[in-house]
Amino acid sequence: MPTIVVDVMPKAELLDPQGKAVAGALRRIGKTEFSSVRIGKRFELTVDGPVDEKVLAEVRDIAESLLSNSVIEDVVAIHEQGA
Amino acid sequence: MPTIVVDVMPKAELLDPQGKAVAGALRRIGKTEFSSVRIGKRFELTVDGPVDEKVLAEVRDIAESLLSNSVIEDVVAIHEQGA
Repeated sequence: MPTIVVDVMPKAELLDPQGKAVAGALRRIGKTEFSSVRIGKRFELTVDGPVDEKVLAEVRDIAESLLSNSVIEDVVAIHEQGA
Repeated sequence: MPTIVVDVMPKAELLDPQGKAVAGALRRIGKTEFSSVRIGKRFELTVDGPVDEKVLAEVRDIAESLLSNSVIEDVVAIHEQGA
């Protein structure tokens, strides 16, 4: 069955302490080539039936209203798995 | 600066109660075309300098050892942003 992936990331202007903690851990173990880490969410929605424009519009709507908090997060990508 | 994206998802055989809650919420508001939802993590690592095979190997190593818990999660994808 087709799967639609929704990627949600914290807004660029927010601090993302979880990402900062990982970036600090990487520095401490000597991996200095990474200047920053940000951590977001990845949703996989399995669709019953074909993925058409109607389903994609519905996913866009769900992504903005239900899967992300628009005050602190951005929906950065919506795409069909493997597409 | 180049960004490498690491996608981590809960293993298929695990329940993922957070995803189940979202799937239930979708059903309740009448969005019945989605049969399941799974929620994972998306890491964005900003790299200082060019992305070569050495950096990618390091990211693969970090993804398995630091960014995911291999008991309950799988690293499903590692790719350069926009690539």
